[in-house]
Formats: sequence, C-alpha cells, structure tokens
Amino acid sequence: MYHAKQLTVSTQGRGFTDITRDVREVVEHSGLEQGLCTVFLHHTSASLVLSENADPDVRRDLEAFFARMVKDGDPLFVHDAEGPDDMPAHVRTVLTQSSLSIPVKNGAPDLGTWQGVYVWEHRTSPHRRRVTVSVVG
Amino acid sequence: MYHAKQLTVSTQGRGFTDITRDVREVVEHSGLEQGLCTVFLHHTSASLVLSENADPDVRRDLEAFFARMVKDGDPLFVHDAEGPDDMPAHVRTVLTQSSLSIPVKNGAPDLGTWQGVYVWEHRTSPHRRRVTVSVVG
Amino acid sequence: MYHAKQLTVSTQGRGFTDITRDVREVVEHSGLEQGLCTVFLHHTSASLVLSENADPDVRRDLEAFFARMVKDGDPLFVHDAEGPDDMPAHVRTVLTQSSLSIPVKNGAPDLGTWQGVYVWEHRTSPHRRRVTVSVVG
Repeated sequence: MYHAKQLTVSTQGRGFTDITRDVREVVEHSGLEQGLCTVFLHHTSASLVLSENADPDVRRDLEAFFARMVKDGDPLFVHDAEGPDDMPAHVRTVLTQSSLSIPVKNGAPDLGTWQGVYVWEHRTSPHRRRVTVSVVG
Repeated sequence: MYHAKQLTVSTQGRGFTDITRDVREVVEHSGLEQGLCTVFLHHTSASLVLSENADPDVRRDLEAFFARMVKDGDPLFVHDAEGPDDMPAHVRTVLTQSSLSIPVKNGAPDLGTWQGVYVWEHRTSPHRRRVTVSVVG
Repeated sequence: MYHAKQLTVSTQGRGFTDITRDVREVVEHSGLEQGLCTVFLHHTSASLVLSENADPDVRRDLEAFFARMVKDGDPLFVHDAEGPDDMPAHVRTVLTQSSLSIPVKNGAPDLGTWQGVYVWEHRTSPHRRRVTVSVVG
C-alpha cells in the first residue's frame, strides 16, 4: 500500500514551522496501521529537522548556532545572485535533511516524546515550500 | 511486507554504540530477501551515523571534531536546563541523522565493507535510547 | 513491489558527480508509477547530497565551505593512515547523507525544480563508488 499527499507550507522567513500535526493527519488519513512514513521537501534552500518540541529556546539556539557557523555575506561565497543569505541557505540545507523517514505504529507516526517535525526556512524572506508526505507498508 | 522491531540501546555517555549486528538480526528475522531497511532513533539528543567500522580512532576523531565545533557551555546558547551539554546535544543531532535507510539484498542489510551502524550519544551521562528497525519490501 | 539496481560512479577526486539521470532511469525502468525511491551510497568517505542544479558556483561554494570547516591535515585528527584528506572525508560524510529518499510520482522521482542528486567525493584522488537505487511501492 502506498499513499502520498502534497502540502504547501508558508514560511515567515528564517525560522521553524511545525508540521508534526500535518504529517500525523496524512498518516491517519491513509488508514495504514504500520509501515514507513517519509517526509520530503522539494527545495534546496530550506530543510527538514526532527527537533525538540517543548522549549522554543532550542529552535532559537539552533538558528543562532547555524547563523554563526554559516555567515551571511561570507566573502568565500561566489554564488550570491539572490543576496547574502542565498548561498548560506544551500549550505544549511546540505548540513541538515531534505527527507525524513519515520516508522508508523498503531496508525500514527511513532515519534519520540520530544520529537517534532519542522520545516526550517533558511532564506530571510517568506517562502511557500512544497512538502510531500508519503506512507508505504 | 512490513516488519519492525524496537530495540533499547544503553549508552555509556558521549560516544558510539555499534548496533550493526542488531540491525542485521532484525532483517534476518524478518525473512525478507530484498527491500528497504530503515533505522530510526526516537530522541533529539542522540543520533545515528553510518561510520567507518575498522579503526576506533575514526570515532575518537569524530567525537573530538564535533566537541570542538559545538562547544559545551557556549554562551550563545540560552537553553541549558539540563547542563552545558544539553543544547550541544540537540545541535549535533540536527547535524547528523535520526533515520537511516539501507537496501536489503540476499536477506541482509547491504552495507559497504567499512560501514557500521552506530548510535552516537551526545549527552555526557549514560542514557537508554529507543531505536526502531523496520523492513519493507 | 520492490526493484533495485546497483550503479558504479567513477569520481574525479574531490567534487560532485550528478547522478540525477541515472536515478531517473532506474525509476522509469522499474515501471512503478508511485512509491518511494531510495538512493544509498556504500562508503564512509563520500556522500550524497540533493543540491542546486543550475549554477555550478553553488557546488564550488559548498566544496570551499566544507574545505574550510573540516581542514585537511588538522592536527586534531589521529586517524591519517591514508593521508591528510582521510579523516576529513569521514567527517564530511557524517555531516551530509549516505541515503536519500525521494517520492515517486507519475513514474519519475518527484524532485524540486532545482534539486539534483549528487555523489560528493571527499577524497582528493579519484574513486569508484558503489550506489544502490531502489524503489518500493
């Protein structure tokens, strides 16, 4: 059995959008009791992370750490057609994930207690991001 | 066909635990000849890596590199409720993997000669970590 | 349904080899209309990335960034049996991906407009790399 749904996620510029509930809804709608759920983001300047879902400071600190590690406007970068955040967005994407695979158990994604599924926007301006959630089993 | 098994991995604090044999056993027990094996870790302060399995110095060097790149007690971090290694553990997790997908061939995970599957504990104290190994095909 | 094919990718030393077309061919050859495609690289000193496929400067900048972040011959590293690029290759692999999962839609991998699938060679000398492309659905 295979079922997939495409989502559109509107981001507010750099930062995290929680899509855990959307992922759960696709799995529940599929009727699959057990199997594998895969989340895929169709872009190269935003990414997916499984991150701590309780304290918002964790996301704030992740963003601060990555901003310091991959500096906007770094003169090392040649590719800056879309601005100082263009190439850093590609680097951050490669350092994180474009796909996540989560086991399905009892009809729901079997996430850990503190795991949330987030789209991490790496561009400073808001974007509409395409995400596909699929289940197989 | 879908088969899954949950493992509990006891870590000794920061460092690597080889779970290659456990992953292999779940695949063999499933009876699946070919398909896809996915390993998932249900936490946000430990992660999974496919790493070189011959020379222990590789794991030592990985740990040393990450310890220097993501410093414990970095004043940049706001989130430190559980100590100076709390936020670094979340950053290291995001920089590595929470899920790994490995092809199954001839009834076994088709790993490269030098690839081992490791749980990488990022907290300084020992933890019990939940891992799910699933196969589909 | 499960179908898999093994590819051999000859790299020219450090840098990127585009395998998007090869992945697409395996999916098309499978006849699968919808499902999940997984790309797996069987090595610990090269990796897979989904990266921007239009401007070659993006790959140049990725390589420059990683070369600066993970320095060849860093005295921190103990493991250097195969030279100054040996341990950096393992670190770069852990910081990127060994497997990628991509949804299949209308008989083709449903990549974003700017997403290409690349093998990233992290060793300075040319290598032959084994890659498995599988589809399930």
